[in-house]
Formats: sequence, C-alpha cells, structure tokens
Amino acid sequence: MHSPKYFQGLIEKEISALSIPGSPVELYDPIRYMLSLGGKRLRPCLLLMANELFGGDVSKAVGPALGIEVFHNFTLMHDDIMDNAPIRRGKETVYKKWNPNIAILSGDTMFVKSCQLMMEVENVHRASVLDLFFKTAAEVCEGQQYDMNFENKVNVSIPEYIEMISLKTAVLLGCSLQIGAMIAGASAENASLMYDFGKNLGIAFQLHDDILDLYAESEKFGKQVGGDILSNKKTILLLHALAHSDTAKVCELKKWISTNDADPELKICAVTQIFESLDVRRKAEADMEDYFLRAMNDFQKVQADPSKKETLSELAERLMVREA
Amino acid sequence: MHSPKYFQGLIEKEISALSIPGSPVELYDPIRYMLSLGGKRLRPCLLLMANELFGGDVSKAVGPALGIEVFHNFTLMHDDIMDNAPIRRGKETVYKKWNPNIAILSGDTMFVKSCQLMMEVENVHRASVLDLFFKTAAEVCEGQQYDMNFENKVNVSIPEYIEMISLKTAVLLGCSLQIGAMIAGASAENASLMYDFGKNLGIAFQLHDDILDLYAESEKFGKQVGGDILSNKKTILLLHALAHSDTAKVCELKKWISTNDADPELKICAVTQIFESLDVRRKAEADMEDYFLRAMNDFQKVQADPSKKETLSELAERLMVREA
Repeated sequence: MHSPKYFQGLIEKEISALSIPGSPVELYDPIRYMLSLGGKRLRPCLLLMANELFGGDVSKAVGPALGIEVFHNFTLMHDDIMDNAPIRRGKETVYKKWNPNIAILSGDTMFVKSCQLMMEVENVHRASVLDLFFKTAAEVCEGQQYDMNFENKVNVSIPEYIEMISLKTAVLLGCSLQIGAMIAGASAENASLMYDFGKNLGIAFQLHDDILDLYAESEKFGKQVGGDILSNKKTILLLHALAHSDTAKVCELKKWISTNDADPELKICAVTQIFESLDVRRKAEADMEDYFLRAMNDFQKVQADPSKKETLSELAERLMVREA
Repeated sequence: MHSPKYFQGLIEKEISALSIPGSPVELYDPIRYMLSLGGKRLRPCLLLMANELFGGDVSKAVGPALGIEVFHNFTLMHDDIMDNAPIRRGKETVYKKWNPNIAILSGDTMFVKSCQLMMEVENVHRASVLDLFFKTAAEVCEGQQYDMNFENKVNVSIPEYIEMISLKTAVLLGCSLQIGAMIAGASAENASLMYDFGKNLGIAFQLHDDILDLYAESEKFGKQVGGDILSNKKTILLLHALAHSDTAKVCELKKWISTNDADPELKICAVTQIFESLDVRRKAEADMEDYFLRAMNDFQKVQADPSKKETLSELAERLMVREA
C-alpha cells in the first residue's frame, strides 16, 4: 500500500495539471487560486487509499478523487461568503480577494467541474458513484444550513450538534472512502463498512478540530487559539459546558457568548476557566474517542489484506493526534 | 404530437409532486417557493417535445425535463443575488424574501437536485446526457460572468454580445432539445441538429426579449417597459445605437447610460428618440429574424415525421411573436 504522502503528492500534481479554461478570467482565476491554497487533500487521499485497499487501479480513481477535492473546495468557497470569513489557509478568501458575486459564480462553476470529474469512472460504476456523490452533496448543504441555524439557536443539544457535523463534514469522508472502494470493485458490504468507517472518523475528526481550536499549541496551530470562543461558535466544548453547568455558570457563559466587544484575551481566559471547572475537555475527548473507536470497529469488519489495512488505520490514528 | 400546453400542464403537475425534504426548512422552503413561481416552463417543454418527435416514451424523459427546469431556476436564484434583483415573476426574489446566504445555499441544493433528476434516464443514455448537461451548465456560468463583465466594459461588440447571450441563455435551449432527442434514441446527426436549432432559437428568443423590453405594450408586458434603459443594460438595441451613431450621439447616449439618477420617463424618452433616429429597432429585428431563420433551417434538416415537426415549428414561431 502506498503511503498517504505518496497519494498527497499525486493529488497535488494532478490538481496542478487540471485543465481549467483561461477565460472568462474572472470566473476561472478564483478556481485556480482556491485549488492552489493547498490543504491536507485528505478526502482524495482516502478515496485513493480505499481504492488501493481493494486492489483498484489508481488511474481509474484519479477523476473522482479530484472531483471530491474540487467539490470540497467549492463548499469552502461558498461557506466563506456565508460565514464572512476573511482568511482561509493563511490567505485571503475568494470573496474577500475578489467579491461575493465572483465567489458565488466561481463556486457554482467548481461544482460543475467536480461533477465532470466524478463522471470519469468506468461505465459500470458511474451511476452508483454519482448517486452517492449527489446524496452526499445535498447532505453537506443541509449540514451547512444547520450550522448557520445554530448560530442563533439558543439550546442546541449534543445529538443535534453531532448530526450537524456529521452532515457538514463526516459524510464526505464516508463518501470518499466508499467511492474508492466501489471503483475498485469491492463488495457492497465492504463498501458500506468503508462509508461507516469514514463517517465516524469524520465526526471524531471534527470533534478533534473543536478541541484543537482551544487546546492546540499556538505556534503549531497556525490560527488564533480560541478563535471559536471569540466568534461565539457552538462547539462540542461549549455544548458540554452548557449541559453541565449550574444556573449561575450558564448565565455567565451565555453572557460571554452573546458579546462581540469583550477584550479577546479576557474572554478566552474567562470561558476557558469555566470549561476547566466543568472538565469539558475530558468530556469532549471522550466523545472523540468514542467515535474514533466506532470508526475503527467498522474498519475492523472490512475484509481486505491486513497489511494494506494497516496503512489506513495508521492514517486514521494520525488524524486524532494531529496538532493543526 | 401533444401540444406545448399539454406538456406545460404535465411539467406543472410533476413539479408540484417533486419530493423535496421538509427540513431544514430554511434550505427547502426557498426551493419550493422558487419552483412555485411558475414561468413558461419552456425548457422542459422543448425537451419533452423533442423526445416525442423521435418517438420517445414521455415517462422516460420526465426526470431530465424536471432536471433542466430545476437547474434553470437554480441559475435564476443565484443570478438574482448577483444582479441585485428584488422581483422575479412579480414576486420577491429569494435573496430579498430571505437573505443572500439562504439564496446561495438553497441554490446550491437546487443544483444538486437538478443533477439527481438528470440521472433518471436509461443507463444507455446517462453518460451522454450528463456530459452535455454539465458542459452546458459550465457555459451558462460563463455567460453570466460575461454579462456581469459587460456592465463595466466600455466597448462591447455585437458579436461579443451574441456570444454572451448564446452562453447565458441559448445553449440551455439547445441542450434541452438535444437531450430530449437523445433519450428517444434519435441519431447523433438529428440530436446535433436539434441542439443547433435550439441554440439559434435561443439567441433569437433573447434578442426578442431585448426588443420587447422597450417596445412591448405595457399592459401586456407585466414589467416596466424600458427597464433595460433605466438599468443601463447593454442590449442589442443599445449596441446597435452605439455602433451606428455619430460622435455627438454616442456622447449623448453614453451620458444617459452612465447616470442612475435621471428622471426615468425623461431618460427612456431621450434614449428611445436616439434609437428611433438610428432605426435601431429594425436592425435588432433583422438580427432576430436572421437567428430565427438559422434555427428553422437547422430544424428543416432534422429527419422526423413532418406532422410532428409542425407542432414544434409552430411553438418556435409563437416565441417570436409573444408579447411578454
């Protein structure tokens, strides 16, 4: 089994070689820019690794791998408009660097491009690959909508939150792994287990993101530590805190998360202290661990060469101890 | 051959029966709203008529017919944000009634839905139908981008304008007709002629729109007559005027189309007078006629039952004499 690094390199090369038209430049330059910002290329790596796990030919899976990555970047381009996010991967977001209209229309065009890339599979697999891809695409939109709804929703339960991150983030990991398996001709049962593996891993991955946002070492993190607190984001940490506080602490927390003009350091410090008094980090880590174990349990049931499986398990484990 | 009215009724019924999820309501209510606004349902009608022309079974073409209509409405939902348009078909646009974020994300979800509907064809046709659909979708985005570019472009030539409306409007009519033909098992040559017929008809249709905007009888038109002049839109009328004026008149025209605070009646009256002095309406009608004849010439070459063809020719002719 090739290493994640190998696949990452391959994806990077294929993305640079993508044929994106020259004009209108206003439409295609932002697409080139967005795809050049890099990132972990996690989803296409997972797709290609799942494909190799079941003996698939990498050349037959490159199209959908790129398709998933282009689709993911399309969602980021539109999310950045909706979330008013000025920075993505250390660079200006498309809507900031150009304007919202450009980000809307370039995003739409990226979505079309991702569909065209998903088409590049053998005839026998096309319908099932596209069915899963479109089902997932609709779910990702639903997840983003729930995420936006949660900004103004007073009581978000932890199951509701898990459902939201499942839709917004996790199903695309499941989809990537299942499509990789399908293209390689894996059995329906194995393909479905790969989906469950990816979905549970994706939930654990997002919970880890929530924890990292506050507890990462700042020099390795590359973003402002505590950014979620400053933007009053409902994360697994905040939801556990709200679920486990007494009335006085709930009031104090709600006071902090309803203000935008508090001193940043003071706000992060105060909220972190409440979190610590309620042992929130441990609770969130327990949730993360729980979903990670579910993922590994699904993966264990997958019938494939154990030595190849090892490389994918290692990648999954590495995602849970990353520092950024 | 069934009448356009029959197909329109069928489409209307199928749209009401579309299964659109209940939640999140913020995502799906705007889709229901947009699809309920009505309209001519021209594209799906053309698709179903082309399908019947070549002996296709209507039940096998309903999916893509709806797919084309949902896609068209997705582009309108996003265009309305970009164009800052408050009213569509006499009702508030989605971005006005809700907000731009809702219109972005509901639009994205509509696009996904349109792809899922396009999948509903027999296996043997799926790849070619989707290839044409995605190629056309990318072109429609390019057309919208050129349209936005033209707002600030000083010298737009008539061929550039024709290319823009071809991408933004006409290729989707060609695509609808070709897909209908393909699903019915028409020969590649006939399918391609149907595309050319639709594309040229689409150009004529848009030129007719430009002319109607100023020369429609206001009580039948349903929109403000002269709206394009008030919004300084580059239409075939304005481009002919700019191409055929002497320097003094060009200056006067440019003065009018660079202002937003002129008295509306005065502005429409002044620009219309310049148009009349330059015989602009006749020139635009000659262009429209030219593309209409090209369309009918393509359609004449199509090999199919002449009595069935008659119904489609009549519809095409009717589009050129409509009053709204």
